Amino acid sequence: MGGSMRPLPGFRDFYPEDCARRGYVLDGWRRVARRYGFVEMDGPVLESMELYAKKNESGAEILGQLYNFKDRGERDVALRPEMTPTLARMVIARERAYRKPLKWFSTSNFFRYERQQKGRLREFIQFNADLMGDASTAADAESVALTIDLLREFGFTKEDFVIRLSDRKAWIDYLQGRGVSDTKSVLAIIDKLEREPEESLDAKLAPHGVTVADLRGFIAAGSPEHFAPLIEELTARGLKDFVEIDLSIVRGLAYYTGLVFEAFDRSKSMRALAGGGRYDDLLGDLSDGSVKLPAIGFGMGDVVLGNLIEETPHALAKMEQALAAAPAAEIYTVVADESRRREALGVVQTLRDAGWRTDFSLDAAKVGKQFQAAEQLGARYAVVVGGEWPNLKIKTLATRAEVTIPHETLAEWLKTTQP
Amino acid sequence: MGGSMRPLPGFRDFYPEDCARRGYVLDGWRRVARRYGFVEMDGPVLESMELYAKKNESGAEILGQLYNFKDRGERDVALRPEMTPTLARMVIARERAYRKPLKWFSTSNFFRYERQQKGRLREFIQFNADLMGDASTAADAESVALTIDLLREFGFTKEDFVIRLSDRKAWIDYLQGRGVSDTKSVLAIIDKLEREPEESLDAKLAPHGVTVADLRGFIAAGSPEHFAPLIEELTARGLKDFVEIDLSIVRGLAYYTGLVFEAFDRSKSMRALAGGGRYDDLLGDLSDGSVKLPAIGFGMGDVVLGNLIEETPHALAKMEQALAAAPAAEIYTVVADESRRREALGVVQTLRDAGWRTDFSLDAAKVGKQFQAAEQLGARYAVVVGGEWPNLKIKTLATRAEVTIPHETLAEWLKTTQP
Repeated sequence: MGGSMRPLPGFRDFYPEDCARRGYVLDGWRRVARRYGFVEMDGPVLESMELYAKKNESGAEILGQLYNFKDRGERDVALRPEMTPTLARMVIARERAYRKPLKWFSTSNFFRYERQQKGRLREFIQFNADLMGDASTAADAESVALTIDLLREFGFTKEDFVIRLSDRKAWIDYLQGRGVSDTKSVLAIIDKLEREPEESLDAKLAPHGVTVADLRGFIAAGSPEHFAPLIEELTARGLKDFVEIDLSIVRGLAYYTGLVFEAFDRSKSMRALAGGGRYDDLLGDLSDGSVKLPAIGFGMGDVVLGNLIEETPHALAKMEQALAAAPAAEIYTVVADESRRREALGVVQTLRDAGWRTDFSLDAAKVGKQFQAAEQLGARYAVVVGGEWPNLKIKTLATRAEVTIPHETLAEWLKTTQP
Repeated sequence: MGGSMRPLPGFRDFYPEDCARRGYVLDGWRRVARRYGFVEMDGPVLESMELYAKKNESGAEILGQLYNFKDRGERDVALRPEMTPTLARMVIARERAYRKPLKWFSTSNFFRYERQQKGRLREFIQFNADLMGDASTAADAESVALTIDLLREFGFTKEDFVIRLSDRKAWIDYLQGRGVSDTKSVLAIIDKLEREPEESLDAKLAPHGVTVADLRGFIAAGSPEHFAPLIEELTARGLKDFVEIDLSIVRGLAYYTGLVFEAFDRSKSMRALAGGGRYDDLLGDLSDGSVKLPAIGFGMGDVVLGNLIEETPHALAKMEQALAAAPAAEIYTVVADESRRREALGVVQTLRDAGWRTDFSLDAAKVGKQFQAAEQLGARYAVVVGGEWPNLKIKTLATRAEVTIPHETLAEWLKTTQP
């Protein structure tokens, strides 16, 4: 197959051991989101290009990274680069059918033609959670708390990560107090505060009547009174130590209207683990005013999270423990006497019908080799079918303890043990 | 958003209730595959076009339905239309790292630009399971048994579906006995036996020295001796009644070398539920002989299966029961006194930390409305935070039974109950 032996650059093969790690992350995300009363949704991988060309949705950067093409029906289509446009489309079409607030999450794959670098791939998985139909600080707190608990689920503590809180409303209040009228342009400049030289920024700020020093002063003050209600909510949940106020965060996308936040590893050595914010006007804008639902949402990608798990010993240990607890086979059926293969197949079927992960050798093999396979697959028990028939020998592999039971009582015996 | 309010034709939105049904099918597939000792893998959604242009892999029909295009790096790429080429690529690259046989499954989405009709979509999900490195009848039986148990998992019985078994080797033996040398061409004609008029088929068969009547005669005889070992294996597993010999099945793809099989609903009113077969030469051919692994595999799509579940009352009832057992909230926290909201938030966090799906009203609401929300979300319990504080009232919603406990003992009380 020559050059096609590898996946495309920026795309991943998931061999069984990779797929198990992916499953660990996906299962963790789903478990926590459901504890928060969020329900899962999804959309198509391919969407009409029109969905991404609308103003206020995807940023210009994302449009330049789209995988878009004409399909066989001459439609302009694109692989989804993010969830928000699909979510907005679906919510606007059917929001009347659901009680408010909507608490929806998704765990989907997205596609962006990005330059390759650490923490960035061209196909990645992202958890998204959106709470729609509630404009309160309580909803903000629910969203931030979910972000925290998603990360805690993987074993991370307040020493490992922090959620940085900011608020576009706090900025707009401040800027308007300073006489700035075009707050949108100034917010776009603030987004570049740590990436551009101060002189160039000051030149851009000059027409608006503020300086980099002014902005840094506001960031340093932190506007604590603005965040007091949210901090109070998080304190009541015991989650206060996971957050910090950091007004330097404004997020790139234009549609945010209030709270914005990002999760970082404490050493801040990596890209953001998660990020999101309140977008109270987006659904109204996209539906020409017919669906007015305030909303807050965030995304968490699998790539940076996976890197942080690998680099954090206690999180890595937790993952490895979870993976070891789900072996390829829980019970291995040993055919100790080939003339009993027929009976062994019946035993295998009984075990599987009872919900156990069971494997056996498809071909005649030495008993020692079969026990070796049992251990390699991570089995806890071996059920031996052979000379003792119509009895079975059940061996606990870790302790070498043995018990012999009549084969008709296997289903009974299994009930005393957990699959 | 005008015309972009809907998904592209042939693509699906998964609203929460659709996503729950999709999850029911995916979870069922995964559970059963794991019981059989199969481990999950996956590949990228986008692959190099080269992977599908190779001989012996995708059929010509699939190539004509590809979603292919040039990416921003001028690479010819395609959305995957099936799993086998990706699986073959991955296995050939790394098979040495794994013990044999490989038992790999996947639950992935695929893309084909098909004409729209019942049971066909342009993005669909397919379960695939491949057992590689074992050429025995035992492996054939393991693959057929897995197909049966996947369908049984959804509540289907032998009255609902049947696996039709055929074998290309039996056909080739018969055709060679009749002096046919170009068996491949005749197999392609057999594949059309039920779709083309007899005269046109006889005209095509004439150069090969056989007639439609000959072929129908062989199908009617059924070659029972050929299938005896497989039937014996399935009998030992108690699964014989789920299969029938039907030599009219040869499967469209050229790469099959032995057993081929398809699963149908008993009334045969739908397309095949699943289909597959043995492909002992494919991996060798694709690796230019460097990786010789005999293999058997099959696929099962989500669309026809979903239709059959919807149309089979006992399967539908089983699904609905499973979905009802996983409500959006298991415990609802009722804030009966707004001045206790802070304490209620602590209770919510305690419940979630203990693994319970918990929801509550983000805004002040009448107690009656909160109980109504609890029932709509499917909650079993309501924990009431109000006048009794520092005690909590726990109400079982179905029975209206109540218990009052000190709030500090909530974690203790939860341990006596299953999340």
